[in-house]
Amino acid sequence: MPSYFTSLDRSIQFDATKMTKVDLVRGEALFAGLNCFEPGQSQAVHSHLGADKFYLVVSGKARIAVGEEEQIAGPGTVVFAPAGVPHGVSEALEQTVLLIAMAPPPRLKT
Amino acid sequence: MPSYFTSLDRSIQFDATKMTKVDLVRGEALFAGLNCFEPGQSQAVHSHLGADKFYLVVSGKARIAVGEEEQIAGPGTVVFAPAGVPHGVSEALEQTVLLIAMAPPPRLKT
Repeated sequence: MPSYFTSLDRSIQFDATKMTKVDLVRGEALFAGLNCFEPGQSQAVHSHLGADKFYLVVSGKARIAVGEEEQIAGPGTVVFAPAGVPHGVSEALEQTVLLIAMAPPPRLKT
Repeated sequence: MPSYFTSLDRSIQFDATKMTKVDLVRGEALFAGLNCFEPGQSQAVHSHLGADKFYLVVSGKARIAVGEEEQIAGPGTVVFAPAGVPHGVSEALEQTVLLIAMAPPPRLKT
């Protein structure tokens, strides 16, 4: 049985060619993971039908957009994207790690 | 309309008499908040029927129990308590801030 305890630091992975997504927690109702960006990388604006999501900026600095709002967010900023509201990471200004949580969880690609 | 952006630091609240709970995000499907502990404070073991929860240790150090596991967890530790699995904070060893996320959200007390 996998442990209930994991380390965020050990899960961080960067890729020079694109932002990365790392799974941390995948339950029936709740998903958590990391999005890791090299400076200049981004995540296109998108929205999730019926799923709420939040970001916590763990480290770094990024321009994050939700709905009509856009802010430069640093460590400790929590960003909420309610179901259906477009959101994205316009640009990572530094090497940036975002914790994300999403409910219900995104479907696994098959 | 409230902003989609909030600061974790500005939400931290301690209480000398008991652990505190602070709401950060409350959506239809996803809740996030802070649990703040002074040294020696705890949260009794409990479980949520049908709701997944995770903790991220933001700062401090605490003994956290999930199922048969118990660990001393510091900053960056992610702890997953799947629906129905008993979990709690046995003791905060320092002033400790935990980010929690839960899906579906806990019911509001009326």
